[in-house]
Amino acid sequence: MTAQRADARRNYARILAVAEEEVAAHGRDASLEQIARVAGVGSATVRRHFPGRRALLEAVFGERIEALCARAGELAGAADARAALLEWLGALTTYAASARGMADALVQEGMTGDPEHVNACAAKLTGAADPLLRHAARAGAVAPQVTVADLVALVTGIALATEHHPDSVAEAHRLLGLTVGGISPRG
Amino acid sequence: MTAQRADARRNYARILAVAEEEVAAHGRDASLEQIARVAGVGSATVRRHFPGRRALLEAVFGERIEALCARAGELAGAADARAALLEWLGALTTYAASARGMADALVQEGMTGDPEHVNACAAKLTGAADPLLRHAARAGAVAPQVTVADLVALVTGIALATEHHPDSVAEAHRLLGLTVGGISPRG
Repeated sequence: MTAQRADARRNYARILAVAEEEVAAHGRDASLEQIARVAGVGSATVRRHFPGRRALLEAVFGERIEALCARAGELAGAADARAALLEWLGALTTYAASARGMADALVQEGMTGDPEHVNACAAKLTGAADPLLRHAARAGAVAPQVTVADLVALVTGIALATEHHPDSVAEAHRLLGLTVGGISPRG
Repeated sequence: MTAQRADARRNYARILAVAEEEVAAHGRDASLEQIARVAGVGSATVRRHFPGRRALLEAVFGERIEALCARAGELAGAADARAALLEWLGALTTYAASARGMADALVQEGMTGDPEHVNACAAKLTGAADPLLRHAARAGAVAPQVTVADLVALVTGIALATEHHPDSVAEAHRLLGLTVGGISPRG
């Protein structure tokens, strides 16, 4: 790799890290100009990497999905299969609730049927988290018919329903707790 | 009541019933012109009752909230407190999932803090369903810290997360079942 390419990669990683923070704080309203300021680069550099807001949001969501996939892989072999699943659900909830735009994007990407997006996002999560969910099902910690898509839909719904709450992340985790334990689990 | 006033009331009830069907089918995109056609009245008559789409949606949502409140009252004295609560949650889910606009409106009305709307909608539901929920809590069918607002948030989230599903009402009921039973109820 040339020094120039190494520089460009570091710049990209830096801009993406700042973009993640801005999207977490401002959702879809994250400003490319503000990202350039905080990252200490010119607007032109930001725009070379992210031609527009959509490209920026896609990169941030892609990065977060990668992190959730990696976490699912780490947790899939845990001794306590239930605790591992709940930890991953907690991470998914934090991501979904802390970036308002992400919840919308997950709903839209999951449901539009655009194969490119489904492959890049929902299907990637499903593939990565399925071993973790199967592990929990074998341990009797989750009903065998529950799918990763169900978990993503429930967490996404919680994030959407709490997005205007003053402390949306904490509220989302509280509602996740009700969903994990069940409103009325006794039959 | 004069014959003229009785006519006007019947017209209003008819327009509102048609409006409910149109909103259930088309959500926020319900057309005032189409409502007038189906109700067999002039556009001017529809617009006299509903000056715009917002007034129409508010009237439809208000009517549905009234029906949910009345159902909660009927069910609050049921012998099987758990079955009564689950029946009401099912009715809430059907309403929320069958009208896309309603779920959005519930989230927005519940969270904007506009006292008029909160009083007219979320608080009305809360007051009406609280005896039903307390009845279930006394029977040990639901944890005592669960509130009606929690139930509304969870159902609203499910409706939002499933709104693009080809069979959104059935899918919402399936996810409600997971939420009632719990993803992983064993501690």
